[in-house]
Amino acid sequence: MAEPIKKVVLAYSGGLDTSVILKWLEDTYGCEVVTFTADIGQGEELEPARAKAQAMGVQEIYIDDLREEFVRDFVFPMFRANTVYEGEYLLGTSIARPLIAKRLIEIANETGADAISHGATGKGNDQVRFELGAYALKPGVKVIAPWREWDLNSREKLLAYAEQHQIPVDMKRGKKSPYSMDANLLHISYEGNQLEDPWCEAEEDMWRWTVSPEAAPDAPEYLEIQFAGGDPVALNGESLSPATLLERLNQIGGRHGIGRLDLVENRYVGMKSRGCYETPGGTILLKAHRAIESLTLDREAAHLKDELMPRYASLIYNGYWWSPERQMLQALIDASQVHVNGLVRLKLYKGNVIVAGRQSQSDSLFDTHIATFEDDAGAYDQKDAEGFIKLNALRMRIAAQRGR
Amino acid sequence: MAEPIKKVVLAYSGGLDTSVILKWLEDTYGCEVVTFTADIGQGEELEPARAKAQAMGVQEIYIDDLREEFVRDFVFPMFRANTVYEGEYLLGTSIARPLIAKRLIEIANETGADAISHGATGKGNDQVRFELGAYALKPGVKVIAPWREWDLNSREKLLAYAEQHQIPVDMKRGKKSPYSMDANLLHISYEGNQLEDPWCEAEEDMWRWTVSPEAAPDAPEYLEIQFAGGDPVALNGESLSPATLLERLNQIGGRHGIGRLDLVENRYVGMKSRGCYETPGGTILLKAHRAIESLTLDREAAHLKDELMPRYASLIYNGYWWSPERQMLQALIDASQVHVNGLVRLKLYKGNVIVAGRQSQSDSLFDTHIATFEDDAGAYDQKDAEGFIKLNALRMRIAAQRGR
Amino acid sequence: MAEPIKKVVLAYSGGLDTSVILKWLEDTYGCEVVTFTADIGQGEELEPARAKAQAMGVQEIYIDDLREEFVRDFVFPMFRANTVYEGEYLLGTSIARPLIAKRLIEIANETGADAISHGATGKGNDQVRFELGAYALKPGVKVIAPWREWDLNSREKLLAYAEQHQIPVDMKRGKKSPYSMDANLLHISYEGNQLEDPWCEAEEDMWRWTVSPEAAPDAPEYLEIQFAGGDPVALNGESLSPATLLERLNQIGGRHGIGRLDLVENRYVGMKSRGCYETPGGTILLKAHRAIESLTLDREAAHLKDELMPRYASLIYNGYWWSPERQMLQALIDASQVHVNGLVRLKLYKGNVIVAGRQSQSDSLFDTHIATFEDDAGAYDQKDAEGFIKLNALRMRIAAQRGR
Amino acid sequence: MAEPIKKVVLAYSGGLDTSVILKWLEDTYGCEVVTFTADIGQGEELEPARAKAQAMGVQEIYIDDLREEFVRDFVFPMFRANTVYEGEYLLGTSIARPLIAKRLIEIANETGADAISHGATGKGNDQVRFELGAYALKPGVKVIAPWREWDLNSREKLLAYAEQHQIPVDMKRGKKSPYSMDANLLHISYEGNQLEDPWCEAEEDMWRWTVSPEAAPDAPEYLEIQFAGGDPVALNGESLSPATLLERLNQIGGRHGIGRLDLVENRYVGMKSRGCYETPGGTILLKAHRAIESLTLDREAAHLKDELMPRYASLIYNGYWWSPERQMLQALIDASQVHVNGLVRLKLYKGNVIVAGRQSQSDSLFDTHIATFEDDAGAYDQKDAEGFIKLNALRMRIAAQRGR
Repeated sequence: MAEPIKKVVLAYSGGLDTSVILKWLEDTYGCEVVTFTADIGQGEELEPARAKAQAMGVQEIYIDDLREEFVRDFVFPMFRANTVYEGEYLLGTSIARPLIAKRLIEIANETGADAISHGATGKGNDQVRFELGAYALKPGVKVIAPWREWDLNSREKLLAYAEQHQIPVDMKRGKKSPYSMDANLLHISYEGNQLEDPWCEAEEDMWRWTVSPEAAPDAPEYLEIQFAGGDPVALNGESLSPATLLERLNQIGGRHGIGRLDLVENRYVGMKSRGCYETPGGTILLKAHRAIESLTLDREAAHLKDELMPRYASLIYNGYWWSPERQMLQALIDASQVHVNGLVRLKLYKGNVIVAGRQSQSDSLFDTHIATFEDDAGAYDQKDAEGFIKLNALRMRIAAQRGR
Repeated sequence: MAEPIKKVVLAYSGGLDTSVILKWLEDTYGCEVVTFTADIGQGEELEPARAKAQAMGVQEIYIDDLREEFVRDFVFPMFRANTVYEGEYLLGTSIARPLIAKRLIEIANETGADAISHGATGKGNDQVRFELGAYALKPGVKVIAPWREWDLNSREKLLAYAEQHQIPVDMKRGKKSPYSMDANLLHISYEGNQLEDPWCEAEEDMWRWTVSPEAAPDAPEYLEIQFAGGDPVALNGESLSPATLLERLNQIGGRHGIGRLDLVENRYVGMKSRGCYETPGGTILLKAHRAIESLTLDREAAHLKDELMPRYASLIYNGYWWSPERQMLQALIDASQVHVNGLVRLKLYKGNVIVAGRQSQSDSLFDTHIATFEDDAGAYDQKDAEGFIKLNALRMRIAAQRGR
Repeated sequence: MAEPIKKVVLAYSGGLDTSVILKWLEDTYGCEVVTFTADIGQGEELEPARAKAQAMGVQEIYIDDLREEFVRDFVFPMFRANTVYEGEYLLGTSIARPLIAKRLIEIANETGADAISHGATGKGNDQVRFELGAYALKPGVKVIAPWREWDLNSREKLLAYAEQHQIPVDMKRGKKSPYSMDANLLHISYEGNQLEDPWCEAEEDMWRWTVSPEAAPDAPEYLEIQFAGGDPVALNGESLSPATLLERLNQIGGRHGIGRLDLVENRYVGMKSRGCYETPGGTILLKAHRAIESLTLDREAAHLKDELMPRYASLIYNGYWWSPERQMLQALIDASQVHVNGLVRLKLYKGNVIVAGRQSQSDSLFDTHIATFEDDAGAYDQKDAEGFIKLNALRMRIAAQRGR
Repeated sequence: MAEPIKKVVLAYSGGLDTSVILKWLEDTYGCEVVTFTADIGQGEELEPARAKAQAMGVQEIYIDDLREEFVRDFVFPMFRANTVYEGEYLLGTSIARPLIAKRLIEIANETGADAISHGATGKGNDQVRFELGAYALKPGVKVIAPWREWDLNSREKLLAYAEQHQIPVDMKRGKKSPYSMDANLLHISYEGNQLEDPWCEAEEDMWRWTVSPEAAPDAPEYLEIQFAGGDPVALNGESLSPATLLERLNQIGGRHGIGRLDLVENRYVGMKSRGCYETPGGTILLKAHRAIESLTLDREAAHLKDELMPRYASLIYNGYWWSPERQMLQALIDASQVHVNGLVRLKLYKGNVIVAGRQSQSDSLFDTHIATFEDDAGAYDQKDAEGFIKLNALRMRIAAQRGR
């Protein structure tokens, strides 16, 4: 077999699973472990992860605040395409993985590690996303995916292993959620437990970021988002950094019950799975971006984007962020966004995001003089329509003459 | 010029515009006029149109109830594709036009007419939809589009012409709406007037089919829709004909404030325009159809449909229902729907349509034994994922080795 | 591990590799082996395979002539789409695999076998094609791919194994070709050996089905192919069965040096490989089919097919013939072919296939009266073009007015 | 009507048609005419056009050598996409039009002209290409298309008009070709006359740039083309400017009988038409570019390009070079070409272009160690293929278990 592994960079959360993995890697591979913990807006303190890693004797500990990079270089580019997977899913988990993969590899290069490791299972999409990214960025890297290797395939076995190896296990947030969850600045997701029955409605208790539409305020709230080059840059007139802007939208959307989603989706590994998602800020952003594009984007540019979007979404979902085809599509998408500038006014009310207005001083392609139902003073010659229709119909008329 | 026109079939609503057109056609072309009035669920009595046509001396009067055909052969096939134009518009107006065009041509053939006429303007999409359909079905037909020919280009001139020619004008529904409207079983639309400013929010008074989310009941309502072969066939356990089912969904959706839309859209004739739409039943149906597909449709089948949908939507929007390319896409779409059978449970609440459950006895592809987070008893071998990822990454690893 | 294998159906050619596999399966799995040998036009006698299987003690021997089924149900449907992979490859190997997979499974069902086996290596596409087909048709089947399991990974080891187990090895065709080859009615392919250097030109000696263009006759030959419903049905006025027709085209094309191809292609498993192909009949057929479509197919139907063809080609190349998405695309393609009827006249000369004429009595959409440079007597109103252009330009004019 | 036209820029060839147009414009519109004559490699002297314009009293005469710009900024970008229209046509005429449109508008801006004019008929594609380009670049420009306006709709009437107005008519090239022709550095085309019967083979006399394959040399010629960033930069080791390189390829290809094409194509205005084309250099270039891409381009990048190519080709064919959607696609295409560097060796023989070799020092993705049929020393783990296949098959296995 291949040469032994000397040092591995582990995507480390500080939780039970990755703490067990840390120990297991040392024991199984006899290698040094570098931990990497990132703040991508999951809403948890990072210092406990540092303390825990130190307590477990880790020498090289990386703790990064990646929130701005995450939103600026991953979330916003994706939203330029109005990206949704399978008609509904806003790709909250998927879009965070390539950034983690990139940092894992950067740290491997900095620390001279020859392998990386992660805590994703062998059934899910995340293993694919981490590893495709890693291989694309460092082709010779070794990847250790403990869940595909070990036999600690239940919570009980993990706890036993932890106890046996004196790994400190602190139960966070009082009682442990029965769901498998993932969170970052774009969303929080829930899988497993009773969600495994697609006929079963999610219980109200499960949701963490949003109130239910029923519990949202009885009065609507209006909101104005300013776009520049296809990206949101200001909220109600206040310029905000990408991460701050998205965080604010999450808060506002969350209190209006916006952005809950309950899906059966198709995983890249070939199975269907049930997931529930809360994406309050992203849901608002998608609606707003479409609205500003409706005013400023050329028709065929918009349609071309719409036709390519499902493929672009699949690439991200499947973990191909760092592939040449994703980059080519991004070049196409970005080329369309230079004129996507302007202001969108939205009304938020009990789960609804309603477009209340859109304007663009410099870039609106809405021409009132032409579109008007009133007299347009010759801006548009209605007689042109006859020739337009006649020639567009010509091929069908010829076919019909042949009896088709 | 061409030979004179002897008989023309007019798409006749009984309203001011088409009454003036009726008279104008007789006067301008010295031709006989056949009127055709259809019930496609616009919610207006048809008998007044008959009386008016008789009063104006029309000899051949066609009054058709096309509601079932409309929903069964046009609306439902379109919904099999989860069709939306430009990400949002449910194509309520567009999908009715090919049926009108087809009946106009059938009646022309039955009555020996050599021309058809309609009341659509020279700026809009409907002229294109009527005429492309007509030419595709009867290549030698002549089309008279008065709005592109005459100079009666304002309401005042129309009224003056009506008075001068003793055309009875009854003001329907009390005061005339300031909007240009279109309605059928799928939707009602509004254009013009203050909507011509895309920054201006639509006034609450404008909407006719739905209450506002604010005015909707405080209690949610649950609903179950049964699908067979991709089409809805029963509501809360009651089998219903296509038109009846859609009508019911409109009522239910309408009272929960569901299906309002406010858009800037791109017309086929090249301009942007603002439109507001109410599509309560269609909005529910789209959500429900996606939900049942999420359980019963293969991943790649679903993705292929998603990628082709924008093009299919454009074809319908632009008036190409009767084209070979629309028929080819329909063949592809329909081939995917045979297994789309099952039940969807929805929760309606103040503008929200929320999926609460989906099931399919015979056709679910959701395999709990494989998808589970619990022990799957060997249904899925996690080790397979390693090879899957390795080979999917191979091309990128080779590229990275070359320094890309 | 899983339960033991009792009976396996082996795709058996009678050659060294699959003879070794036969023995190896018996020894390794202690199972019974059923052999399946098919005539798909590879140009080899099948009786020696029967004799050899008998000599090795096989009890259930299947020998099938699948030539007509192969051409009628696989080759012709594929050619309806003008299918080429990566711009050049006519998919000769790929299209035969789903038929073999189907027969393997049918025989497994007939004989009560629980597994199938094949002689494809772990680096190529054929393993994928065999196995995806098998799994799609019989989800619980076990697949044994000896090349991925054993350590007989060189010709020397195979020969040693054969000698050791008294497997009769007859050296066919005098000296063994240094290339890895595959043949059926559609093509013959060459890989390996000196072809592994993409800068190295293939030696003349390698090619088996075609003369070189230089060695082809100095006089051209004309040929007429009749199409019905998109498929070729007659050659020079003679109605022929699918397999006979393709065989004839291979002979004619072969003597005119037609259909050689030298490619670097992208395998599904992630690597690039060099291959040389001879597809004389297929090359003629592709040109002829495009020619008859050029006359009889609607423009947008043709363009839609062209846009979807690369994906359809990839599906076949990658082994997804039995997938729902391939079937959906086939439904779309077939829906376009009903009017593809007529006659194509071709000139063959030293490697060239030149269209010399095309006609269709009933289905030509070429309208001389409209297309003519001479006076068309009003069949087409040139003034229509102005409106056509003006409205197609409108969106770009509005954008240009905004300074874009 | 609109305000009168004061000055018009005419695309002027010096031939009969545009000379008559020149005079007709002056007479009909009472306007000044600026002539614009470009060398795009059509192979005609430009000075006679200058002399003729002077003789007709034109004050502002533009004569431009646009050959390098044409090939560098239009032909080469198009070839980066391996662009063919309807599977065969290399777009020789189409790609020249946007450049002419651009210069017409630049000259209109320089000379203060308010209109442009051209000699394209109302039935063809060129009117659309000129005018869409013009409108996109100068939205308020007026376009005069005499062929759509006047009644000089035959050669006799043109000659009579010329005689009547003393327009000098010199019969070029001895006897006038019976075909409507167009030429530039990329190709020469033929339409009309006996070609209007698609069953009729083109006569040998028609072709001007190439010898017939029969008349080509009996000995093949080898050729090496160097690519950098997807564009050809050297021939047989000699660096050449874009126009010079294409000119050389035309000469070499022409003498080997390469690049003849005989097509029925679908015009944008809705009719089918027959055209014959000679594109010797372009035919060589397309083959060479695909060959170097086969070695240097990632699989998915190549497939994405292939899938989008037909749409890109249609955009160019239909005249949308200056549209945002063409520019977006170009951004995608260009993003793929940075690594398309290397050398292609071709064999030319009697109409055949045969790839004899391809290599790329720095950018080849062909990895002999992995692709080899010999022992690869562990570069590729064949066992990975099993997991790859298993997971790719999973969705189909689940479906098959449900009886699909």
